[in-house]
Amino acid sequence: MSQSEPETPKKKVSFRGRSNVPVAASNAEGEDSPEFEPFGLMPRGPPPLAEFLDIWDVNMLAQPNEINKREHHTSLYSSPLLIVRRAQEFQIRITFNRAYDPSKDQFLLEFVIGSSPQTSKGTYIPVFPDPDRMGLWRGRVLDSIDNMVTVGITAAPDSIVGKFRTYVAVLTPYGIRRTRREVKHDVYVLFNPWASDDAVFLKDETERKEYILEESGVVYHGEAGDVSARPWNFGQFEYGVLDACLYVMDQAQMPITNRGDPIKVARKASAAINSRDDDGVLVGNWSGDYTYGVAPTSWTSSVEILLTYATSKRPVCYAQCWVYAAVFNTFLRCLGIPARVVTNFYSAHDNDGNLKTDIIVDEDGRVDRARTKDSIWNYHCWNECYMTRPDLPPGFGGWQAVDATPQETSDGLYRCGPASVRAIKHGQICFPFDAPFIFAEVNSDVIFYKRDKSGNMQAVKVNTSHVGRMVLTKTIGGEHPFDITSQYKFPEGTEEERTVSKKAEEYGLGRQKVDYPETDVQVDILVQEVSVGDDFQLTLEFKNHSRDHRSINAFINGYVVYYTGVTSDEIKYKTLKVTLDPLQTERVTVDVRSKDYMSKLVEQCNLHFIVTGRVEEGDQIVSAMRVITLHVPKLFIKVMGEPRVSEETLVSVEFTNPFQFSLDNVYLRMDGPGLMSPKIKHFSLISPNSSVTWPDSFTPRRPGPTKLMVTLDCVALRQVYSQVLLNVKP
Amino acid sequence: MSQSEPETPKKKVSFRGRSNVPVAASNAEGEDSPEFEPFGLMPRGPPPLAEFLDIWDVNMLAQPNEINKREHHTSLYSSPLLIVRRAQEFQIRITFNRAYDPSKDQFLLEFVIGSSPQTSKGTYIPVFPDPDRMGLWRGRVLDSIDNMVTVGITAAPDSIVGKFRTYVAVLTPYGIRRTRREVKHDVYVLFNPWASDDAVFLKDETERKEYILEESGVVYHGEAGDVSARPWNFGQFEYGVLDACLYVMDQAQMPITNRGDPIKVARKASAAINSRDDDGVLVGNWSGDYTYGVAPTSWTSSVEILLTYATSKRPVCYAQCWVYAAVFNTFLRCLGIPARVVTNFYSAHDNDGNLKTDIIVDEDGRVDRARTKDSIWNYHCWNECYMTRPDLPPGFGGWQAVDATPQETSDGLYRCGPASVRAIKHGQICFPFDAPFIFAEVNSDVIFYKRDKSGNMQAVKVNTSHVGRMVLTKTIGGEHPFDITSQYKFPEGTEEERTVSKKAEEYGLGRQKVDYPETDVQVDILVQEVSVGDDFQLTLEFKNHSRDHRSINAFINGYVVYYTGVTSDEIKYKTLKVTLDPLQTERVTVDVRSKDYMSKLVEQCNLHFIVTGRVEEGDQIVSAMRVITLHVPKLFIKVMGEPRVSEETLVSVEFTNPFQFSLDNVYLRMDGPGLMSPKIKHFSLISPNSSVTWPDSFTPRRPGPTKLMVTLDCVALRQVYSQVLLNVKP
Repeated sequence: MSQSEPETPKKKVSFRGRSNVPVAASNAEGEDSPEFEPFGLMPRGPPPLAEFLDIWDVNMLAQPNEINKREHHTSLYSSPLLIVRRAQEFQIRITFNRAYDPSKDQFLLEFVIGSSPQTSKGTYIPVFPDPDRMGLWRGRVLDSIDNMVTVGITAAPDSIVGKFRTYVAVLTPYGIRRTRREVKHDVYVLFNPWASDDAVFLKDETERKEYILEESGVVYHGEAGDVSARPWNFGQFEYGVLDACLYVMDQAQMPITNRGDPIKVARKASAAINSRDDDGVLVGNWSGDYTYGVAPTSWTSSVEILLTYATSKRPVCYAQCWVYAAVFNTFLRCLGIPARVVTNFYSAHDNDGNLKTDIIVDEDGRVDRARTKDSIWNYHCWNECYMTRPDLPPGFGGWQAVDATPQETSDGLYRCGPASVRAIKHGQICFPFDAPFIFAEVNSDVIFYKRDKSGNMQAVKVNTSHVGRMVLTKTIGGEHPFDITSQYKFPEGTEEERTVSKKAEEYGLGRQKVDYPETDVQVDILVQEVSVGDDFQLTLEFKNHSRDHRSINAFINGYVVYYTGVTSDEIKYKTLKVTLDPLQTERVTVDVRSKDYMSKLVEQCNLHFIVTGRVEEGDQIVSAMRVITLHVPKLFIKVMGEPRVSEETLVSVEFTNPFQFSLDNVYLRMDGPGLMSPKIKHFSLISPNSSVTWPDSFTPRRPGPTKLMVTLDCVALRQVYSQVLLNVKP
Repeated sequence: MSQSEPETPKKKVSFRGRSNVPVAASNAEGEDSPEFEPFGLMPRGPPPLAEFLDIWDVNMLAQPNEINKREHHTSLYSSPLLIVRRAQEFQIRITFNRAYDPSKDQFLLEFVIGSSPQTSKGTYIPVFPDPDRMGLWRGRVLDSIDNMVTVGITAAPDSIVGKFRTYVAVLTPYGIRRTRREVKHDVYVLFNPWASDDAVFLKDETERKEYILEESGVVYHGEAGDVSARPWNFGQFEYGVLDACLYVMDQAQMPITNRGDPIKVARKASAAINSRDDDGVLVGNWSGDYTYGVAPTSWTSSVEILLTYATSKRPVCYAQCWVYAAVFNTFLRCLGIPARVVTNFYSAHDNDGNLKTDIIVDEDGRVDRARTKDSIWNYHCWNECYMTRPDLPPGFGGWQAVDATPQETSDGLYRCGPASVRAIKHGQICFPFDAPFIFAEVNSDVIFYKRDKSGNMQAVKVNTSHVGRMVLTKTIGGEHPFDITSQYKFPEGTEEERTVSKKAEEYGLGRQKVDYPETDVQVDILVQEVSVGDDFQLTLEFKNHSRDHRSINAFINGYVVYYTGVTSDEIKYKTLKVTLDPLQTERVTVDVRSKDYMSKLVEQCNLHFIVTGRVEEGDQIVSAMRVITLHVPKLFIKVMGEPRVSEETLVSVEFTNPFQFSLDNVYLRMDGPGLMSPKIKHFSLISPNSSVTWPDSFTPRRPGPTKLMVTLDCVALRQVYSQVLLNVKP
């Protein structure tokens, strides 16, 4: 909701006449229920209540080792309050002033969320411990010993997810007496992937462990042929994170009644994780200037971001796609929706409504930079979440793509999904939400146009396999990438791929239909791994597939690019003339020197090389593209001894500046789930070839396997990180 | 786009690194093309150009009576510039310095829209007058006489809709010479319902005349049994309106490249016509307090609203549903998308995700106002627009529902549609956009719950035919209502209706499934038409369908309500005891006096009566609901003589205050397409039973049938209007 819109100042007035009550859209708000609610007139004041049940104590059984959190897989949450999942029984123990007598005593539990609670909206839920009085939630007396009654309660499988206020109430002939509102009686109800009638049910226990309970993960980035894995602390169980996630929905004014539907929750969050439109969590910034915030490459954890947002109540600066995806992942796992981060390598962008990215070359075959305006992101991260899709025909449940990065053109608004991954694979892009946009991200063609002097353009070459080269997510239980490309599309050249293409075209997402000139000459760019500061060689391999001679006039252009594919500076331009005998293969090497690019590098150190050329015989265009992500120097982390719960452990982080120039204003961040809150260390200067050491310590909070991760960030050098796996002893 | 979002001030910086160029989203912006664009190096300055063609004049043939506007059905637009439609040839006449010689001269026309024009985006369109050089738009030389060449140009059927800059360019061996940019050479390209390959093609000429060319219309309101028709001046051809409509899209930052797709244009406009989220055209206000703006009931025309918006660049105050629908209608017809305003009587609201509206009665059968929070709008207006739906499976083209009124819960954002009306009728609500929301507006059940003292609720009665009682739009070519209910749903009780219900349920929009107690007693509320200030009688008709005696304890509640169904004040409460013999019908009359309601009335003068009761025999609940819209006093318009083009015509408007109280601060507005700009008259006081006269005059601008309409508005009396049909002589 925009703060500046003219309607806002009048909001308190203007719902009058339009609806009976404002829509409840805040979990944080809500009135306390009265302690006595009379049934009718009481001419001489409240009656004697002594003969009726009196409530002495309500025990939510909320300790991490007690039955509720153990059985509901919520023991990891750092919260003193009860946290349970839908469609699964939890227990509350009530102590009365005397033994409960079902034949004459009547009591109930009331669960209330938001303002203006209503039974029919699922925001006021009375639960009678009586199988004959079934409401939305089931209740039964589990045992009754002396004055103590243990009640079993099962929230409906489609219950609203959020924080409910709990009351115990006794019915008397004069009215209802209920407990006073106490914060410690509040209960969080979450989605339940363990329950078969919950929309987010996930059958496999190892998958539930990974996609709900796993607190750390990796985000893949870099280049399709040279993938890097950046560690991330999702921290969905850290103190305050669950409340922050509820605050995200409150801030986005999401109606309480919609919060039981994982489709709506995921869709709303895809808008609310970014700050556009609604003052959501993260401000995007791709400019390279992060002066008044944290550089996107510097973060290690969603925890710091979500807690800062919930505390400051202002969007947090800054994010790029993996930060959005990582925070979104925390949000989803925290609320109990199975989720994972995925990375699409060579992700087409700005292609709403068509399936092509244009590269324009002049009559000589050289790239016309001024007219080539589309970009392909080297990689783009989004999320998948797991749920049924009752709003769609059968077959489209399962993993759903959602994207919180504010790209330009998702239905004109800054949100995206959920789109059924299976629907994308099968070209069934007519179903909500935003399937055409994601379909284009993995399926666009790269089309080379030749532009003559008079401005006439002709499509001369198409590359159908560049975009959506590979989609990766983390392996369950491991650190290795799991290739899920085949979940997004059928293999290139298969019958199924053609069928899908036709289907997408029926829905208006057509490929460019052109008869491209036949080509019999091929060029590829070969390169080894390169570190920042290295001189290196590119090898261009020209292959003549024909039985004739071929002469090629080729150009190689090298640019420094952002990871979004946007060009910064040119670093290389060279013309080549290659002649090939029939069926000959010829290799040409091109030297790239450190001094060519070092002063021009932008964050993430990507170089983009394009070879284009014209074959003299016939009207052929040859082309090849390659992104090279230069490797950055490493950080070294040394942990002294074996970490144990509640024992201080020493750690040191070392870094050597390998460059011929100084690094200024260097920030290091250290983080680890269950180990520490993020720590920050600042070095104002690291001189050329000199080393710095950051000695520090941490005190683990709980046993088991975890990670310690460190990032280094400064203007001249970003995306430097390292991690060590630790197993904390009890 | 919110003005307060933190990203905005940095916008100029932050697209850097994210995309090569900012997305062109303004038709108003754009650089002028250079007059000379060299092909390469010119070592000794510009060459002699004398031998090449020189352009002396470009004539857009833009007079209303010339071929272009006549053939393209755009003569009515008050604009000196050329306005044409897609997929249909228009002509431009170019005068050169000498005769054009196709064998050696080369020239082209360039059409350019927005900033950063690109051929591949359809924002830079070169057109060669040569059938062999086919671009997106076709060009050919129609004739060539002396120095003058007439070129025929046909915009692509999916061309971007908006205002293009036109250049004529001559190719020389040294470079391109083009005309200087001149505003008078700009051309508007619109959607074309006359062209079979345009997505908005409409076959029937009488329909095209109504849904594109008709400038005045009516909006139905009131009550299903007593419908009133409010006149409206859509004014889509008035001076400045077309530019204002383009400004609406600019202000909403709609990417230029999306503006050729009527689905995207309609969807974006459904968001941009209201001020929520994006500072769109109209601020909603249902509060009754319109001090700093114009009361929604006071407007007569979209023209004043759109021109005010485009000039002030601020949202206009105030609107309710029919104002949104009327302005949206102007927008759609102005751009060439066939459109009409529809009114749904008893429109359910606030039902996203379920199909019910709850009315809660206590154990005695009396309405529990405190707990009944849902509302049903007496009527709600939205729009339909006509187009193909290539994004959906076959069969869902045709009329599409779109709604610009910012209701609370359309996917969490203030926009709605386009949703295929046929998909809604068939329960195929899985397709975009917002079909479930509109489905619920016409199909919700009204469910009566009995709530016992302990808060336990039981559904006891359902009314499945109250909501969506009737959907009306104006008859083609006439003033009468055309009932289109059957386009939204199958008749109650048919096999098809049950199938649709099941289908909707499959998509998660389930009806409440309850075994309601059988009822054999029925009650209906009968009433005559009533004018404001009248004492009147309600007749309650109780029918006993059983062969036993029945005793009914009934309550009648009367309220003043807003047209949104929201309750203001109680005006009547009465208990009744009725006993019925087997199969007997008994009528009971209830008196309602003027003094009961006069001081409590709110705008639009709606009274809402609910009868509820309990039958002593068995567990039956009886109920009936009825809205009464009190008739307001009339305005009398007298036009002197026969109006003729450019001749002053006298008119007088008379009004008598029939009440026992004064009317303060009374505003009258007079308007008429082709007759005048809106005129306003203010009376600071109209005493009880006294009359006022407003003599004025107008000078018709064009011949043909039209309307003169007048509204009267003050705090105590709204929705007073009148119209006269006129036929202006040439």
